[in-house]
Amino acid sequence: MSEIPESLQLEAIARVISPYQEKFGVPRQPGLVPGARGWLQMMPEFARPEAFDGLQGFSHIWVIFGFHLCAGQHRLRVRPPRLGGNREQGVFATRSPFRPNKLGLSVLRFEGLDLSGDGVRLAVSGLDLVDGSPIFDIKPYLPYSDCIPDALGGFAGSAPENRLRVVFAPEAERALESLPEGAAAARELIVQTLSLDPRPAYRGDADDRVYGTRLQGRDVRWRIRSGQVEVVEIVPLSA
Amino acid sequence: MSEIPESLQLEAIARVISPYQEKFGVPRQPGLVPGARGWLQMMPEFARPEAFDGLQGFSHIWVIFGFHLCAGQHRLRVRPPRLGGNREQGVFATRSPFRPNKLGLSVLRFEGLDLSGDGVRLAVSGLDLVDGSPIFDIKPYLPYSDCIPDALGGFAGSAPENRLRVVFAPEAERALESLPEGAAAARELIVQTLSLDPRPAYRGDADDRVYGTRLQGRDVRWRIRSGQVEVVEIVPLSA
Repeated sequence: MSEIPESLQLEAIARVISPYQEKFGVPRQPGLVPGARGWLQMMPEFARPEAFDGLQGFSHIWVIFGFHLCAGQHRLRVRPPRLGGNREQGVFATRSPFRPNKLGLSVLRFEGLDLSGDGVRLAVSGLDLVDGSPIFDIKPYLPYSDCIPDALGGFAGSAPENRLRVVFAPEAERALESLPEGAAAARELIVQTLSLDPRPAYRGDADDRVYGTRLQGRDVRWRIRSGQVEVVEIVPLSA
Repeated sequence: MSEIPESLQLEAIARVISPYQEKFGVPRQPGLVPGARGWLQMMPEFARPEAFDGLQGFSHIWVIFGFHLCAGQHRLRVRPPRLGGNREQGVFATRSPFRPNKLGLSVLRFEGLDLSGDGVRLAVSGLDLVDGSPIFDIKPYLPYSDCIPDALGGFAGSAPENRLRVVFAPEAERALESLPEGAAAARELIVQTLSLDPRPAYRGDADDRVYGTRLQGRDVRWRIRSGQVEVVEIVPLSA
């Protein structure tokens, strides 16, 4: 087998445009936040509508992407947030970004091919990628092969259930109303994202820190109050 | 976004040991041939049981691998075998190997960690990889996120249904009996593989050519007779 190459050089075929501008707040799997909408902006070489002919019959796509914010050494053992951040697992038993080769895999809802602007982009939702992540492949989701309903899911056998209620302080409520995409869309993204409790590990109700999450060009500031997420304010990010 | 790297150098973390020794005959998706058993032989750096701690709770794994036999130029349009090989689709609407970056994605049944020989290997089944393919990532299959039962599957909405019946000529039947893994296991692999009709495109019953498929170190020779696959002979491959 020695003649088979052991390395492969990938070049990005697209970049993701995502509301998540930093790792903090990104959902831990795709599909948890249906309101997380964005695009795969194809690189010029692949900005060719004919390369997507037939994709309109599929509702979902796989993307293979790079965890570009997790450069550096990988780990052989990691502490998945699903286990509270304090129990180690082998890295290959998790979807942790701190893995050899730094490849991510997400299934996204495909919302259509967008030829309205410059180039070619794919509208997607259910994003769990950080803005700007390089995309190395796009494949159709094949339900007959990819969906295995009776598969055993180990320590992550079901979706995270304990969603927190999200409320808005008056100042945040006022800020919502003035957003260009409309209050409803902005509220949907914020509520779905923060209800997952993005804190690194469970810190309990005694946690009175105000957290900031960069979403869609804004700093969304929130805290935990009586087991709920209270959005305190929404302020534009300076560029 | 210009500071984000556009390329990524992958290094194989494992090699697959598969009964399929050439592209011809490889099932077009994983899981179609449950009897296709093999191993992911970890490279020395990752031959560490602790890197798989927790994986025993999962029944299936994803592998991201290289289509190492499809080097050279990719295509933007391909002719999927599922459409009879005569209708073009955009490459990103297919799982064709002739794609940019030459990455494959397969879900395999995880049969356990094998520490019995030298190093560490993962026993798998349902293989659709060519022997020796470089593996770049192994991830657990998360049913709550990866299984989307109501996804629309475009031109490949259901599994291939027209399985052919497979019969064995007397000489092939005798050869089966003398195989070291046992006649039952060898028969299962051959029947499941050839029932999918691996011919490049449908050629009809008038096709009297004898095909050879390299399986598990042997040349399995077969032809189509009255709409059935007849295995003519099974001969060892000279090394």
